[in-house]
Order: sequence, then C-alpha cells, then structure tokens
Amino acid sequence: MCSFLLKRMDWNESEQIIFYIFLSMSFKTKITFEYSHLQIGIDANHIKLPNTATEAEVSDLCITALNENPAVHGFIVQLPLDSNKPINTEKITNAVAPEKDVDGLSSINAGKLSRGDLGDCFIPCTPKGCMELIRQTGKELTYLLKTNGSSDIEISRSYMPKPIGQLAKEIGLISEEVELYGQTKAKVLLSALKRLKDKPDGKYVVVTGITPTPLGEGKSTTTMGLAQALGAHLHQNVFACVRQPSQGPTFGIKGGAAGGGYSQVIPMEEFNLHLTGDIHAITAASNLVAAAIDARIFHELTQTDQALYTRLVPLINGIRQFSDIQIRRLQKLGIRKMEPTTLTEEEMHKFVRLDIDPTTITWQRVLDTNDRFLRSITIGQSPTEKGFSRTAQFDITVASEIMAVLALTDGLEDMRRRLGRMVVASSKTGEPVTTDDLGVTGALTVLMKDAIKPNLMQTLEGTPVFVHAGPFANIAHGNSSVLADKIALKLVGQEGFVVTEAGFGADIGMEKFFNIKCRYSGLQPHVVVLVATVRALKMHGGGPTVSAGVPLPKEYTEENLQLLANGCSNLSKQIQNARIFGIPVVVAVNVFKTDTEAELDLVAQMAKEAGAFNAVKCTHWAEGGKGALALAQAVQRASQAPSHFKFLYNVELPVMDKIRIIAQQIYGADDIELFPEAEQKIILYTKQGFGNLPICMAKTHLSLSHDPERKGVPKGFVLPIRDVRASVGAGFLYPLIGTMSTMPGLPTRPCFYDIDLDPVTEEVNGLF
Amino acid sequence: MCSFLLKRMDWNESEQIIFYIFLSMSFKTKITFEYSHLQIGIDANHIKLPNTATEAEVSDLCITALNENPAVHGFIVQLPLDSNKPINTEKITNAVAPEKDVDGLSSINAGKLSRGDLGDCFIPCTPKGCMELIRQTGKELTYLLKTNGSSDIEISRSYMPKPIGQLAKEIGLISEEVELYGQTKAKVLLSALKRLKDKPDGKYVVVTGITPTPLGEGKSTTTMGLAQALGAHLHQNVFACVRQPSQGPTFGIKGGAAGGGYSQVIPMEEFNLHLTGDIHAITAASNLVAAAIDARIFHELTQTDQALYTRLVPLINGIRQFSDIQIRRLQKLGIRKMEPTTLTEEEMHKFVRLDIDPTTITWQRVLDTNDRFLRSITIGQSPTEKGFSRTAQFDITVASEIMAVLALTDGLEDMRRRLGRMVVASSKTGEPVTTDDLGVTGALTVLMKDAIKPNLMQTLEGTPVFVHAGPFANIAHGNSSVLADKIALKLVGQEGFVVTEAGFGADIGMEKFFNIKCRYSGLQPHVVVLVATVRALKMHGGGPTVSAGVPLPKEYTEENLQLLANGCSNLSKQIQNARIFGIPVVVAVNVFKTDTEAELDLVAQMAKEAGAFNAVKCTHWAEGGKGALALAQAVQRASQAPSHFKFLYNVELPVMDKIRIIAQQIYGADDIELFPEAEQKIILYTKQGFGNLPICMAKTHLSLSHDPERKGVPKGFVLPIRDVRASVGAGFLYPLIGTMSTMPGLPTRPCFYDIDLDPVTEEVNGLF
Repeated sequence: MCSFLLKRMDWNESEQIIFYIFLSMSFKTKITFEYSHLQIGIDANHIKLPNTATEAEVSDLCITALNENPAVHGFIVQLPLDSNKPINTEKITNAVAPEKDVDGLSSINAGKLSRGDLGDCFIPCTPKGCMELIRQTGKELTYLLKTNGSSDIEISRSYMPKPIGQLAKEIGLISEEVELYGQTKAKVLLSALKRLKDKPDGKYVVVTGITPTPLGEGKSTTTMGLAQALGAHLHQNVFACVRQPSQGPTFGIKGGAAGGGYSQVIPMEEFNLHLTGDIHAITAASNLVAAAIDARIFHELTQTDQALYTRLVPLINGIRQFSDIQIRRLQKLGIRKMEPTTLTEEEMHKFVRLDIDPTTITWQRVLDTNDRFLRSITIGQSPTEKGFSRTAQFDITVASEIMAVLALTDGLEDMRRRLGRMVVASSKTGEPVTTDDLGVTGALTVLMKDAIKPNLMQTLEGTPVFVHAGPFANIAHGNSSVLADKIALKLVGQEGFVVTEAGFGADIGMEKFFNIKCRYSGLQPHVVVLVATVRALKMHGGGPTVSAGVPLPKEYTEENLQLLANGCSNLSKQIQNARIFGIPVVVAVNVFKTDTEAELDLVAQMAKEAGAFNAVKCTHWAEGGKGALALAQAVQRASQAPSHFKFLYNVELPVMDKIRIIAQQIYGADDIELFPEAEQKIILYTKQGFGNLPICMAKTHLSLSHDPERKGVPKGFVLPIRDVRASVGAGFLYPLIGTMSTMPGLPTRPCFYDIDLDPVTEEVNGLF
Repeated sequence: MCSFLLKRMDWNESEQIIFYIFLSMSFKTKITFEYSHLQIGIDANHIKLPNTATEAEVSDLCITALNENPAVHGFIVQLPLDSNKPINTEKITNAVAPEKDVDGLSSINAGKLSRGDLGDCFIPCTPKGCMELIRQTGKELTYLLKTNGSSDIEISRSYMPKPIGQLAKEIGLISEEVELYGQTKAKVLLSALKRLKDKPDGKYVVVTGITPTPLGEGKSTTTMGLAQALGAHLHQNVFACVRQPSQGPTFGIKGGAAGGGYSQVIPMEEFNLHLTGDIHAITAASNLVAAAIDARIFHELTQTDQALYTRLVPLINGIRQFSDIQIRRLQKLGIRKMEPTTLTEEEMHKFVRLDIDPTTITWQRVLDTNDRFLRSITIGQSPTEKGFSRTAQFDITVASEIMAVLALTDGLEDMRRRLGRMVVASSKTGEPVTTDDLGVTGALTVLMKDAIKPNLMQTLEGTPVFVHAGPFANIAHGNSSVLADKIALKLVGQEGFVVTEAGFGADIGMEKFFNIKCRYSGLQPHVVVLVATVRALKMHGGGPTVSAGVPLPKEYTEENLQLLANGCSNLSKQIQNARIFGIPVVVAVNVFKTDTEAELDLVAQMAKEAGAFNAVKCTHWAEGGKGALALAQAVQRASQAPSHFKFLYNVELPVMDKIRIIAQQIYGADDIELFPEAEQKIILYTKQGFGNLPICMAKTHLSLSHDPERKGVPKGFVLPIRDVRASVGAGFLYPLIGTMSTMPGLPTRPCFYDIDLDPVTEEVNGLF
C-alpha cells in the first residue's frame, strides 16, 4: 500500500482537470475539478463543502481531504480531451507530489506527460506493492501500458481497468446507450446502431489460423495484441470483437480464455464467469423450449381434442380468444378464422395437435456445466409422466441453436423471427414443428432481450472490446456476434479498425465467417490475419503428437528447419483458402521463446511465396500491443490494398453441390460421400424449404480432412457426410463429418481444485 | 407526446437545482445546474457550451437547447435536500412554463410545490399520452405517487422508476457500495454493512399470513403496501425485503410475483426475469457439484489408487504438491503430512477414494425451468460412461441447498464455509461426503461471489426494496436473505423500519423465520404482521374449495358472517403461534371488493379477542401506500410495545423432541409418528454430528395439519414424519411430512402463450 499527496497549486482558470481517486483496489470515487468554474462534483459523500467557500478554500479542502483519507491510494490526472490549448504539463506533474510513499511515482513525470497536448498519466497501486503502471495517450482514448506479472490472472489483476463508463464515453457512446454492470462491464444498447446508421463503417479484419494443435495457436491473444497495437501504439480507433467463453470448461480442463500474457481482456475473471448473464439467458431459453416440447407431447397424449382446445383457448370472463401466437399457427395451417367457436372438429384437431414424432426431436436441453453423465439420459420416469419416457441428452449451452441465433441476428425484430422459426422436430406426417408452433417465441424473445446487447470490456491496455455470443465452431459457425461487429464498425469510423476473431482454423472458422456471418450481416471484410506458430507447422511437417498437459517433444523446442518447411504446406493452403474469397492475407507468426530466427524467417518467406500480403513476427504475449506493432502496420497497409470479396458458393445451389464445393476447394477433398441418413435429410430439408440455407460444416479442426491424424495438406480423400442437421432459426444446415461431442466432461482433477476466492481481498485465485 | 418549455429566470445564487431531462421513455440524461457556481455537467453530449460563456449565457444556452430538443419530453425539478433556507417555490414553478402542450402540467403547480420546504415535482410523459404523475417529498427520499392502469404490468409500466443510483444515494449508500445493473437494479456491496456496523438497527417487522388458499392472500402485496405507507405517507425511513421469485413458474401457471396492483416492485419484468443473475449463479454452482459427484464416482470406478493419486496430485515442473483443498481433506482424514511422496499406500487409498455410495446421493441437479420430464431420469447412458448409469432427478433451482445457504449466510467467509460443508452423500462406510471432499468449495464461492450482494430495487412509490435469495418454503426455510435484512436495518437507522416477508402461513414461514433465520442472524424482531382475507377465512369456516383459474363460488362473493366467524379459528391460532415467540401481532385484513363492512369488522374484532395488538383493514392493492396507512400506524405503535422474543426450542434437544415441539405447539398435533426411514436418518445424522441443527419442517402450507384438506384448526391428529433430510451447509434438518414436489410442470396452455416483446417499444407484454 502507498499513498500520494496532492499539492495545492494555482490552476489556470481555463483548464479542466479530472482526478480519479482510487479507494483501495476499486475505481469507485471520481472527483471532478473543473477549474474553469471551480466545480466540485463528488460522487461519494466523503468531502463536505460549505456553499460559501471561496475557490481557493474549496480547492484546499478537497486536497486536504484526499491527502488525509487513508483509503485513497492513487489517482489519475486526466487532461481535457477537447482542449484547444497546449497543457502546461509541468504544472500538473508538480501537483502530484510524492511526499509520502514514492514507489513508481517518479517515472510518470514529465517524460510521459509531455508527450503531447493530450497527455495523461495514471498512478494506481496494487495490494502487493506499488507497481509502475503508466497511461499513455491515444487519439481520444486513454491507454494502460505494461506492468509486471507472472501468470495470466496475476497480469490481469495487476492492471486496473478504466471505469467502463469512461471507456464508453471515450469511444463515442452516449450515456443512454450504455447500461453499466458494475465498474468493468457494460451492455451497449442497439439504439447506438440506429443513431450511427449513416456513418461509414471502419475496416473489418478477421483473425483466423492455420490448422491448430490441440494447444491452440494464439488467435485470441493475437486479436487482443493487434487491437492493442492499433490503439495505444498506432493511435487508431480500434475495437476487438470476441466470443464469450463457456463457463463450463473453466472448471474442467481449460481454466479460462481471455487472450493471454500481456494481450488479454480484463478483468479475466469477469470475462470467464457469468459476464452479464447472456449464456445463462440462453440456458433458460433453450430449456424452456425443451420443457415445452415434452409437456406438449404429454398433454396431447393424455387429452382429447376437445379438452386440449378448451384449455388452449380458455374461457376468460365468458369469452374465448386466440392469442397472437395462436393466430399465427392458424394462418400457417391455412385456417382463416378469428372466432374460436367457429372451428370445425377437423380444424380443431389440426390446431391442437402438433403431433410431434418423438424420434425426430433435434432440440436438446442444455447446461453450462461439463457434465458427462448427461450425454445420454432417459427422461420422464416419474409416475406423474405416466410412462411417457424417452431418451434425450444435455448439450453444453453454447451448442444451443439460440446461441447461433444470437450471434447472427441483426436486431430485436430479426431475433424474434429467428427464435420463432427454429425447427425442433418433425410431426408424424413429416412437417417441421417450430418454436412458434409451441407458442414460445415471445417468451424466448423476452428471455433474450438483454442478451442481445453486446458487452463492452477492455484489453489490458484499455482498448475497447466487445464480448458477445459464443457459438460452437463445429455444429455452429464459431464466430462472435454480427451486432457487436456492426456497432464497433460504426464506432471506430471510416479510418478505424474492427478486429474480430473466427473460431478454429481458416478452413472452418474463416470459411464460415465469410459464407455465413458476412452473408447475413452484409459486411465487407478487408483483411485476413492468419495466425501461425512454428510449433504447429512442425507438427504438420511430421513432428510427434502434441497434447495438452504433456511436455513438448524436443522437435518443438529445438531448431528443425526441415520439419518446419514440410509443415508450411498447411500454411500455404490456408493462405490460399483466404485468397479464394478475394481478401488480402497477413500472416502473424506468434513467437515462442524456443523459436529461432532462422525458423521465423523461413515461415515468413514461405508465407509470402504462398501469396500472403505480408508475414510478420509477433511478441504481443510477452510485450502487449508493442509486440504486435509490425502486425498492426502490415494490417494497416493491407487494408488499403484492393480486395474483391466474393462468396464461395451461391446459396441457391443444391445442398450437395454446396457441400462439395467447400470440401473440394477448402479442404482439398477429391469428392464427398453421402451416407444414407445424410441423403434422406437433404431430401427432407429441401422438401421442407430449407435447401437454400448456407452450409455450416461440422468437421474436426485438427486436420484439413475429416481425420484429425492427417496433418499438413491431406490429399486423395473423400469426405464422408454422415448426417445433416438444420439450424433453421440461426439459418444454416450442418453436415456432420464426424462425431461431434457437445458435452465435455470433468477430468480426475478438474481445474476447480485450484480455484478459490480470498474472502478478505475478494480476489479470485487459480483461474489460470 | 408533449413538450415543455423552460423559461430563463434569475436564480438565487445560493440555490442548487437539478434538472432531470427525460429523453423519450428513459431516465438517461441528467443535466445539473448548480447555480451557486454555475456548474453545468452534462452526461450526454447534447449541449455544447463555450468555456468563455457568462453565467447568464450558459443558462440561456441550456434552456434553449432543452426547449428545442425534440427528444426532451419532460423533466423533474428537484430542490436541494439539505438547504437550510425555505425555497421560493413560486420562482421555480414559474420557470416551468407550459407554453406548448399543457397536458397534465397545470396540476403540478404551486399546489404540490408549496407543500413544504423540501418540495419536489415531477412531470414525465409516457408514450401513450401525458399522464399526471407527481413526486412528493418524504423525509430524504423522493416518492412516486399514484397513476392509473389496469393490469399489474400496465401499472408497473406507467410508473417511471427513479434512477437506481439516485435511490441508493437517497438511502445513504456511498457510491463505492453500489454496483449498477442498468438503470433500475443495483447490487449493494457487503462493505456497506462493515461501514455501518456500529450503527443501531431499525425496527424489524415480519409479514406472514393465516393458512392460505391456493390463490395466496397477499403477503407480498402487503409487504410492499406497508413499506410504501411507512415511506411516502408517514415519512419514516423504511426498507422492504423480499425473495427473488423463481423464473421457471413465470412461464408456467403463475406469471410473476412482485406484489400487485398499486403495491409492487418495479420494473416487474426485471424482478421476475433474470434480475442480476443470482439464481443463474446458483444453477451453475449446484450443477457443478452434481457433475463433480458423478465424475468422481466414474473416475474412482475406472482407475487404480495409484492412477487416481498421480492425477489428483500431478507432477508439475517436476514437483507434486497438494492444493489447499487437498490439505483440508488430509486433515479431515487425520493424515498430518504435507509432502505427497510420503503417503503410505493405505493413506493414499483413503485420500483418493471418497467411495460414495450412489444410493445415498441427496444432491440433485437443478434448472430454473418447469420441466416435469426431469423429475425422474436415468443418467450416464452414453457409451463413454461405460455403463455406470443411475437414477437421478432435477429440481427447480430455488430448491437447491445453495439457495438456502445464500439466504442464511452473513458474509463471504461464512458462505465459503457453508458451501464447503454441504453433505452430498454418504460413503459406503457411512461417513458424510461433503462438497469440500469433492474439492469444489472454492469454485462454488467464486461462482457465488456476486450473488451474495443484495439487489436494490424500488416500489411503485419509490420506496427502497431488497430482492435477495428465494429458498423454497417447504424443503427450505422460505425467507429472504439475512444479509439484505442486516444491511437494511442499518440503513434505516434506529427509528426506521425493515419489512421482511416470510413464505407460506405463520405455522411455516414465520416459525422458520424465528427459529432458523433469526437464530442464525441474531436479529431481534419487533412486530409480526399477519395477513388475512375474508375469502380464506370463509374457506377455513367450511366454504367450498378454492382453485386457481376457477371462478369463486358465491359463498366468497356474498356476505356470510357465520362461515367467516367459524373460519376465524385459523386466524386466532396463527395469532397465538406468533404470540408464543413473544412478539406483538398486527393483523392486516387485505380487503377485496366483495367484502362487506360487517365482515371486515368481524375479522378485526375476533383478531383482537385472540390477542392481536391491533387489526386493521388494508386497501393498498387498489390505493398504494395510502391504503395501508392504518396498518403502518398500527405497526409503528406495536413496535413501541414491549416484546420478549424467545425461540420455540433449544437446538441442543434431541431431534425428535424438537420436531414434536413444533408439531404440538404450532400445528396443534397430538403427537408425531416417525416412519422407519425417518428414525434411521435421525440416528445417522445424530451420529454424524448434525443433531444440533434447527428443524425446517417440510409440510403442506394449505393446512395446519399434514392434510391439505383439513381447514380451520385441525384437532386430534398425529403428524407423520416420513423421512428426514439434512441441509448441513445451510444449517438445518428437514423432516418430510408429505411428498414435496421440487419440480413444477407446464400446463396445457402455459403463460408463455401471452408473453411477448414488442420489438419497437421493447416493452414486455403478458407477464401478468
């Protein structure tokens, strides 16, 4: 712990200076000194000022109160952002007088503050002693720059995030558009998009990767590092957009994901846990649909048409009336009647009976918990369910179609439409049964009304980040939300950058980003950043297997140019995959400390030979945004290069043709082979009118082929299509190439053994 | 829509006047004019002011900007709360010049503003035209008074809540203690309790009821009405504390609970849906425990001791180390070793094997969804679980022991202890297996770290409300949180009131409030408010059955003094039940429009004869706080009366004796009868060291006896105790008197048929 003293001094009348006062660890009290009129606005009632005090007296009282308050451990001095005059930085730094504890203070003096006319300095303290932590100045934002720490959570904690309301203001949101969720998270209302609709979009950059090892190659970290570099270091307007991680795996093997090292979203515990409850809302909405399906089957099985009708359209104060959702069902059935008493018995029968075929139910219950014992269950075994039991399963929440809907929707009305057209089963006559048929559309929309608003957080350096939606990257499209990207593109302005991340390698996440996400959003991408590591390329070149939790074989820790050169085939193929869409590719080589210069140079050289716009080394994990400066500059240049974005296929093509195009052109397959189940489903979906949906391939991410063992660029294979499913609400068909696990389990020693909360400091330990 | 004009006028230099500007429907922009120093702080950047403007110019510019801004539809003029001088109200009302549209404006003029020296007026507009909606002044709070509406949700929506940050400030919270969740909800940090620990507590009032009909008798509504009366009408400091409702039933039969009519918590859709995610956190935490249990059983069944040990205490960078939670397990086992390599084979065996007996598992998975098909299920049927399937069930989330822990804890450290000592099963040798044995204590605490903070909302009239925790009232104790009550008691101060609600009738909710909640909190209750209705008393007197959704028989809608007089036996017994604890009882007769004066008088008379301190008629449903004025005055007087609070039983008594005392003294049973299973459990729990826990009876709430059909005051019955269970973390044993359903279902036509979101106005429809 340490304290600072503020000296009384004579401020220039025209300067407006804001002091942020830190009480213990939290950013809670803001004291505003606006010296033009000596305004003292105090959020907390710590300092009482008499109305009659003179300007000088007020100033002295405040400064004394701050100095004497043992809870005040540090402060920011933020100079006005829109002042026309140069600021007398020396006067300000002189006001920050280290008369008690001086740890870390000296370094903030004029050196930083004299950098420009919009100087800004920042002096917080951590509970473990006072660390140097300097804010520098971007264009209109304040940034937090590098400190020291060892684990990701320690690094995350050693930075004190800006109050999220301040960040919202810095990026041009107005207060009506922001709902604070505490001090570090906020929801951004869709009204922002409406207000900014006529503004041009910024540059749209997608981060993807080569075919990864099971350890991951650092896409999230690179997304954060690139955004940090564009922001705090190149002073561009920038936004990073990422998926919200599932909470379940946080307590299983994985232990959280928020980037890593000095390129993270903070606070990482908020990012990895409940956030603002979006995933919980999806759990509630998904399970309401599931409960409605089984309850409806049960009630239909145990009641006559007349009893069902009397209950579905009840007499209230002597009157029977259809609800709106029932009128929609009547219209769908071709019954043009509004008066419940006029339905014929035949019409009543059609109206009351969804007649769901239980064997066709594709809708699953979900939990955001790694619970392997729910992978296959029998439900309905209580005597109250009268023997109508059936086999069912739970998936992890992020596998819910509602998550994919959230990620692809462009507004409340569109979300309501999508939530209503989700197909949950077929009737016994082969008609699709939708959520709207179940009567649940409105309730789902109500449950999702807050989840649709993107969540604003920040990187370690204070760059804005949207964390919104996290659909699975195999059975769904694996990209963060269209809405977050759209709002971010407006906020950064025409010259700004939005860096968005696509799940898995370029053959999966990027292909879906272009063919599904961009198709629905109508947005034009400008640059592909393709992340590669020497480690993964060596694996593709024939190196031994890499597994999480097992030490790396020496092939990966010692120079081996031959293995690397062989493996670059995968990099080349993925570069070509991106080029098919007409977008320039910048390769980011995520450097590990065991990589040699010769290895790194070889990767860069081979990337350029394969058609990359550029290929650069990145050290943002260890150095923050500074380590991704070369990448940021390459992205800036690539964004100016000509691009000719085009989709890979026309959605009007037959389903089989669309699948074949992806398999041949992206994966390099000779052909596809349809299993009988897949063939039947294609016929069914085409008949039901879903044949024109884009394709979302459910394939392993560990190989370009369907076999995770085949590394590099597999040749001479026929891609087996075992089955095809439909996410009609989200808007895609997903062919199943292998068995996709949709419910992870807990290992013998789950992460939770190390996770704890210190009841005194309230710090979360062990999340990494 | 309508607009108002502000006239420029000469303000007194010493007056500080705050204008709240309403942009459309939301309370988003606040413009602060502090005329002592002419400070203009503008949240949204709507009005740009040059630095060089004079005071008069600035004032003119602001007023012009407001007048010309089509988005500004109304404003509050709030006079300073702590000014010593009388305010020139005329000057202020003159500034509010209705030069354009004048709907609803005339009535606010001096009539209201001249009421006192702390005047306050409020003129908002709703999208459906301009309604009169006046703020009046309480002691330090601003209150919102009556408007018009028909359904509960319409009434709820027709009031515009105060910004929750304003309410937090009005009740004396400092900004470090408040985390906003949007504009209408906030979490209050436990640091508030620490800051106020030396302040005396206010008066503690518990609202309970007679044995209810299935329709409910209006306890929540009375809780709100009483708080509103004490606040806006009697100008006392007051807080209402209620449970958070389960979201599941909102979409089933019930459709939400937030009080009703003009005595509600607003906004009711926020109250009834996700709120701030506390119940979702409990779902996540409960299911993590369940997943950990089955995963552990699975891993123990499929691995040798050595393999388990190697995985549980893994080699990391060449070193094996126990985690903190593993050291606690070693201590519990009596193994005093810290060095993993020194354990004997025998010790290793004891350490790695929890040896859970699957037939003894009492921990259930939970969902906040009415899903009847999950009442009994078989889990573990996927081939990956190798045949280790078992029968299990899902409960509704509020039935989780973690909910009861949340409601009874008094701080983070205590919650962590309780979460660790929850017993989930017995080992094959009969030892209790706890959550701490599973290694999951810390993770549970981390998941619950935000849920522990009470949620601040407000009534229709602007009275503060804590909404926090909602344990079941049968298998748990059915009371809102100890922490919310504790913080509220400090905030209202010695002369203030905290009105807290207990679930079900006095024989259940109130008995548990005293014997469980007050025992753990150490708080001293002052007054019992017992809610009764003529309808329910007639039912107890022998009236026909009352069911939800079925029209009331004429016995209930026409005067029938005989039936009523017979039924008052139940009221008398419940009054006596409260008197056993030594606390004065005020009977609140919740008036329905069909009740006659003679009926209401009879109830009041019989209540007083039975020993009630007072009995008064209440019309707060129709009239808001005004309708509970007599009740509030009676409560004020009762709180001054002498009281001698005592528990019903000593926890050191044998379990059977404690159960018998409750059965005989509260229910009026002749005796109790233990079923063999109950007897065995009492022996087991006593042996395991849990015999000294208080008792939480799981009995029907529809009769004083165990038979819901026996109304009035049943005599000559023996209470059957079918089984006994333990919630060791929460801290009680719960004898099962009947079959308690812990998972509701969906009816043929669930509420969700009528629930929808208007995608344009974003209003939620159909929640009531």
